[in-house]
Amino acid sequence: MNKVGVIMGSKSDLPVMQDAIDILKDFNIDVEVDIVSAHRTPEKLFDYGKNAHTRGFSVIIAGAGGAAHLPGMIASLSPLPVIGVPIKSSNSIDGWDSVLSILQMPGGVPVATVALNGAKNAGILASQILGTSNPDILNKVIDYKNALKEAVNTSAKDLK
Amino acid sequence: MNKVGVIMGSKSDLPVMQDAIDILKDFNIDVEVDIVSAHRTPEKLFDYGKNAHTRGFSVIIAGAGGAAHLPGMIASLSPLPVIGVPIKSSNSIDGWDSVLSILQMPGGVPVATVALNGAKNAGILASQILGTSNPDILNKVIDYKNALKEAVNTSAKDLK
Amino acid sequence: MNKVGVIMGSKSDLPVMQDAIDILKDFNIDVEVDIVSAHRTPEKLFDYGKNAHTRGFSVIIAGAGGAAHLPGMIASLSPLPVIGVPIKSSNSIDGWDSVLSILQMPGGVPVATVALNGAKNAGILASQILGTSNPDILNKVIDYKNALKEAVNTSAKDLK
Amino acid sequence: MNKVGVIMGSKSDLPVMQDAIDILKDFNIDVEVDIVSAHRTPEKLFDYGKNAHTRGFSVIIAGAGGAAHLPGMIASLSPLPVIGVPIKSSNSIDGWDSVLSILQMPGGVPVATVALNGAKNAGILASQILGTSNPDILNKVIDYKNALKEAVNTSAKDLK
Amino acid sequence: MNKVGVIMGSKSDLPVMQDAIDILKDFNIDVEVDIVSAHRTPEKLFDYGKNAHTRGFSVIIAGAGGAAHLPGMIASLSPLPVIGVPIKSSNSIDGWDSVLSILQMPGGVPVATVALNGAKNAGILASQILGTSNPDILNKVIDYKNALKEAVNTSAKDLK
Amino acid sequence: MNKVGVIMGSKSDLPVMQDAIDILKDFNIDVEVDIVSAHRTPEKLFDYGKNAHTRGFSVIIAGAGGAAHLPGMIASLSPLPVIGVPIKSSNSIDGWDSVLSILQMPGGVPVATVALNGAKNAGILASQILGTSNPDILNKVIDYKNALKEAVNTSAKDLK
Amino acid sequence: MNKVGVIMGSKSDLPVMQDAIDILKDFNIDVEVDIVSAHRTPEKLFDYGKNAHTRGFSVIIAGAGGAAHLPGMIASLSPLPVIGVPIKSSNSIDGWDSVLSILQMPGGVPVATVALNGAKNAGILASQILGTSNPDILNKVIDYKNALKEAVNTSAKDLK
Amino acid sequence: MNKVGVIMGSKSDLPVMQDAIDILKDFNIDVEVDIVSAHRTPEKLFDYGKNAHTRGFSVIIAGAGGAAHLPGMIASLSPLPVIGVPIKSSNSIDGWDSVLSILQMPGGVPVATVALNGAKNAGILASQILGTSNPDILNKVIDYKNALKEAVNTSAKDLK
Repeated sequence: MNKVGVIMGSKSDLPVMQDAIDILKDFNIDVEVDIVSAHRTPEKLFDYGKNAHTRGFSVIIAGAGGAAHLPGMIASLSPLPVIGVPIKSSNSIDGWDSVLSILQMPGGVPVATVALNGAKNAGILASQILGTSNPDILNKVIDYKNALKEAVNTSAKDLK
Repeated sequence: MNKVGVIMGSKSDLPVMQDAIDILKDFNIDVEVDIVSAHRTPEKLFDYGKNAHTRGFSVIIAGAGGAAHLPGMIASLSPLPVIGVPIKSSNSIDGWDSVLSILQMPGGVPVATVALNGAKNAGILASQILGTSNPDILNKVIDYKNALKEAVNTSAKDLK
Repeated sequence: MNKVGVIMGSKSDLPVMQDAIDILKDFNIDVEVDIVSAHRTPEKLFDYGKNAHTRGFSVIIAGAGGAAHLPGMIASLSPLPVIGVPIKSSNSIDGWDSVLSILQMPGGVPVATVALNGAKNAGILASQILGTSNPDILNKVIDYKNALKEAVNTSAKDLK
Repeated sequence: MNKVGVIMGSKSDLPVMQDAIDILKDFNIDVEVDIVSAHRTPEKLFDYGKNAHTRGFSVIIAGAGGAAHLPGMIASLSPLPVIGVPIKSSNSIDGWDSVLSILQMPGGVPVATVALNGAKNAGILASQILGTSNPDILNKVIDYKNALKEAVNTSAKDLK
Repeated sequence: MNKVGVIMGSKSDLPVMQDAIDILKDFNIDVEVDIVSAHRTPEKLFDYGKNAHTRGFSVIIAGAGGAAHLPGMIASLSPLPVIGVPIKSSNSIDGWDSVLSILQMPGGVPVATVALNGAKNAGILASQILGTSNPDILNKVIDYKNALKEAVNTSAKDLK
Repeated sequence: MNKVGVIMGSKSDLPVMQDAIDILKDFNIDVEVDIVSAHRTPEKLFDYGKNAHTRGFSVIIAGAGGAAHLPGMIASLSPLPVIGVPIKSSNSIDGWDSVLSILQMPGGVPVATVALNGAKNAGILASQILGTSNPDILNKVIDYKNALKEAVNTSAKDLK
Repeated sequence: MNKVGVIMGSKSDLPVMQDAIDILKDFNIDVEVDIVSAHRTPEKLFDYGKNAHTRGFSVIIAGAGGAAHLPGMIASLSPLPVIGVPIKSSNSIDGWDSVLSILQMPGGVPVATVALNGAKNAGILASQILGTSNPDILNKVIDYKNALKEAVNTSAKDLK
Repeated sequence: MNKVGVIMGSKSDLPVMQDAIDILKDFNIDVEVDIVSAHRTPEKLFDYGKNAHTRGFSVIIAGAGGAAHLPGMIASLSPLPVIGVPIKSSNSIDGWDSVLSILQMPGGVPVATVALNGAKNAGILASQILGTSNPDILNKVIDYKNALKEAVNTSAKDLK
C-alpha cells in the first residue's frame, strides 16, 4: 500500500534514477525498483502496466531517454498516475527527443512529466501524490520544503 | 475534500482550461475555478499557494502561457501536487516558452507537466491522483480508459 | 504474402496516411488498413505486433502524431521492417514531437522514419523493400521514378 | 540612493553573476548582493520585491537558470526596472529554458533580458539606467565604451 | 529631457511598435518616433546613435525583425540604455532570428531585450527607467500595476 | 545477392558506421564498404547510385553529417531501399543539420532514416529488409531480439 | 557571358524564385531559368552542374525546399559560385530543413546561402558578384542601395 | 585589385578565420586581415564598409559570433559581395544566434552565408567570385576540387 514503482529502460539510467529512489527512501516510502524496456522487453512492459494497480503500487515513476516510450506505454496500460523522467542519454539530440516523447501524450493518457534528468523531483511528486491521502507524508513534504528554505537562507548569510 | 483547484493566468486561457474542468465534472470531482496571475496578482498567488492545502484542495491544476510562472510559483508555495498546463498563447514562440517555463523546475520543487494545451490530460491526471486513495475515482478512470478503447475499436470497424 | 499493413493511431490520421495506401494500390500491392492506438488500445497493439509476421505481412507502415509511440512499439514487438510516418497533428509542437518520438529509437530496435507527413514516401519505401525480392515491383519502382523525371522535364519545358 | 540589487536563485549562480557585481564596483555604484530563490524562499522573494523601491534600490539585477522565475516574479512585485540574466545551469536544455522563461513575459510586466550568462552586460545596463539621471555615471559609461574601442584597436595593430 | 526615442527598421513594424508609443503617451512621457534602418540607412543610424544622448533622449526603444541589427547597433553607438523589441516579420523563422539577433549581444554592449512583439513592455520598461529619477513616473508605474491587478480581479469575479 | 552496400561521405565517419558493418557480419550478410562523397566525388556517387541494383546490392546504407546529401542522392539515383544514418560531425549544429537533410526528402524519393549516429539500427533494418524474403535472416532477427530481452532481464535480476 | 542561371527543384518554387529573376532583369543581367530536380532528374542535375561554366554562366542561383540538395550538388559539380535559396515549402518543418540542408556544407564545397525565401537577395548577390569585374553592374548596385535609402527616408517623412 | 578583405569582430575569432586566410594564400590571392568590431568600433566599421570598394577590395569576408552584426552591417555599407562566417563563440546558444543573425538579412541587403565555423568555405567562395572574371583563379578552383576528389579516392582505396 502506498508503494511506488521506479522503473527505467536500461541499467545505464540508474545513476539518474537513483535520485528518485533516494528521496522516496528518505521519506520512508516503500519503493520497488525494476528495469523494464518498452523496446526490448515488451511483454514485461505489458505485464507490469496491466497489473501494477493490483500489485500494491499507487504511483509509477518511469525514466527513459531518446525515443522514450516507457512512461507513455505504462500510462496506456495502467490507471495509476505515471510520472515520466526524460533522461539525456548519450546519443540524444540534447534531450529534446526524450522530453517531447514523454510530454506530448495525446488526450486521454497523461504522463506527469518532470524536468530533463529530474528524477529527484519525480520522487518528490510521488510523495506529494501519496500525501494527498496520508498526512504523515504531507508533513514530510512540508518539512522538506522548509529545509530547502533553510539551506538557501544559510547560503545567503554565508555570502554576506 | 478531494477538491481540485483549477487556476489560470488570464481569462483568455479559459477555452483551453475548460477541458480540465469538464473531465473533472464528468468524474463527479469537486472543482473550484479561479483566475490567479503570477505577474499581475502576486498577492493573490501568494495567498492561494500558501493556503490551498488547508482550504480543502488536494490537487491544483495551473495553466499559463509565455513565460509561464504560475504553476511553478504555486508549487513553490504549496505542498500539494501541482499539475502544469503549458498554453500556446498568441505571442508565444510556438509554445516552447510555456513548455520550458513549466517543465524545467529546479530540484526540490516539481510541477507535473502535461502536453501543450493538454488541459484534458491535466484533469485526468488529477483524477488519477485522487484515485490513489479513492477506489470510486480509480474505477472511473478504468471505465474512461475502456471507453477510449471502445471508441478506437468502433472507428477501426467503420474504416473496414 | 508481400502484404503491407498500414496502421495509424487515430482516424484523424487517415487523410495523411491515405497517400501510402494509394501508392501501394497503384503498385498493385496488397494493403490492409487498420487503426491501432498505442495509448488507447494497447492490447490490440500487442496482438498486432506479435503476430504480423505470421499473418502474411512483410512490411508495416505506422503513422502517429505528438508523442508518437505506435511505430516504435510495433518495431519492439515485430521482427518485420517497420516504417514510421511522423504526423503533424493539431496540438503538435510544429511536428518536432512526432519526428523525434519516431526517429530516435534505441540501438537494437530500428524504425525506418520518413519525412513529416511523408506517407507517400512510406508507401514507396515499402514497395522498394518488397522489390528486393520481387522484380515486378522493382520494375514498377523504376517506372515510377522515370515518370517523376518526365513530369519535371515537362514542367521545365512549360516554363520555357 | 542609486543602489543596485544583485540577486540570484542559488549560490551556484555566483560565478556567473560576479561579472555584474565587478562592473558595478568598477563604476563606483553601490551594490547589495543576496540569494533569493523564487522556488525555495518565496516569502523572501515576496518581501524583497514588495519593498525594494522603498529600501533605496533603483534597479534590480536577477539571475536564474532552468525554469527561471526569479526575474519575472520580482518584476511582478516591484515598480523598479528589473534586469534578467538567463544562466546556463547544469541540467538546462542548452540554456533555452532560462532564456525563454525570462524573456517571454506577458504584456504589462517587462524584464530587461540580457544574453545567456551575460551578467557583465546586466551590470553595464544598470549603470546606463542610473546614467539617465547621473552625468558622472553616464560619463563612466562613455569612458568604458572608449576603452573597449581602444582594446580592439590595439589587438588590430598587434595582428598586423 | 526624459524624452524617449522609438525607432523601427521599417514602416511595416509600426503596428507592433505602436503599443510602445501608446503606453508612453498614456504616461505623459515625451516620445519621438522615427524610421531608422540599420541596413538601408546606415548613415542615419550612425548619426542617430552618436547624437541621441546630446539631443535630449534618455532611453531608446528600437524594434526590428529577422536579422535584427538596429537595437544592437544603436547600443554600440550610444551610451544610453537601449531597449530592443524583436519583431516577428513575414519571412522570419518563427521569430527566433529576431530574438537571438537582439538578445545575444557581446560583453560590453547590452540591449535590454523584451518578448517577441513585446512593444508594450518596452514602453513600460522605458517608463520604469525614467521612474528611477522621477517620482511622478514611478507613481504612474505603481498605478498601472494596480490597474492590471484590478482587471484580473474583475475577470476572476466575472468567472464566478 | 542479398548484398548490402555501406557507404559514407568521409573516412572520419567510419567509427560510427562500423556498427552497421559489425551487425551485418554478425548476421552473416555480405557487406561491401566504400567511401562515396556526394560533394567531393559526384561522379562516383552517380555511378554508384545508377548501378547498385545491377551490381548485386539489395539495400544501401549511407551515412553522412552536416548538409548530408549522400543518402538522398543515392535514393534519387537507385530504385533500391536506401537507409540514411545522420552523423553528428564536428561542426554540426548539434546534429540537427544531418537529421533534417536526410529525413525531409520530397514526395517520391524516400530515405529510411534512423536515429542520429544510429548505424547499428541501420544494419538491423537492412537485415529485416532482407528477412522479408529470407527466412534464415528473419530468424536471426528474431533471435537477436530475444537476446536483447535476455540481456535486460539479466540486468534487472542483477539490480535486485 | 556574365549570364546567371536560376534553377529550382520544382515549378511550385517559381513564385519565390521570381524575385531573383525580376531583380536580375531590372539590372539588365542575362538570366536563364530552368527546373532541375536533384531528386527526380539527377542526370539533368549532373549535366547542368558539370557544364555550366563552359556554357557561359558566371553564377548559379539554386532554390529548393525540405531536404534541399540542389544547391549543394550543383556546388559539388561546378567551379562557379553557387547561391542557395532555402524555400519554406508546404511540409517543411518551419523552414529549418531547407536552411540547414543548404547552409551546412562541408569544407571544400561552399554554397552562398541567403535568408529563407530570400530570392531577391540571391539576385542582388549575383549582381554584386558580377559587379566585381563589371563597373556598370557595380554602379547599378550602388544606385539600388541609394534607392532603398530614399524609400526609407520617404516613409520616415510620411510618419512625421 | 582582386584583393579580399578578411575581418572579424575579435582577436579570439582568428583561429576560426585563419582557414579563410590560408586558402586564399594557397590560391595566391591578395588578402588583408583586420579586426573590426561592429559593437566596439562602430566608426571603424563605418569607414571600412563605406570605402572598401574604392580601396581595392573585391570581396569581403566577415566572421562574427553571438548577435553577429558585422557581416550584415558591412553589407549595408558596401556594394561589394560580403561573405558571412557564423562563429560558435563561448556563450553562443549552440551557434544558432550567429547563424540566424547573419543569414536572415532583409530584402535588399544580402550576406552570402557559409556554414557555422566554415571559414575555409568562405575563402573558397571568395576565390570562386574572383574566378568569375579571372580564368587563373577559376582553374585553381577546378584543381582544388580535383584534389578533394583524389583525397577521397585514396582514402577509399585505403579502406579496401
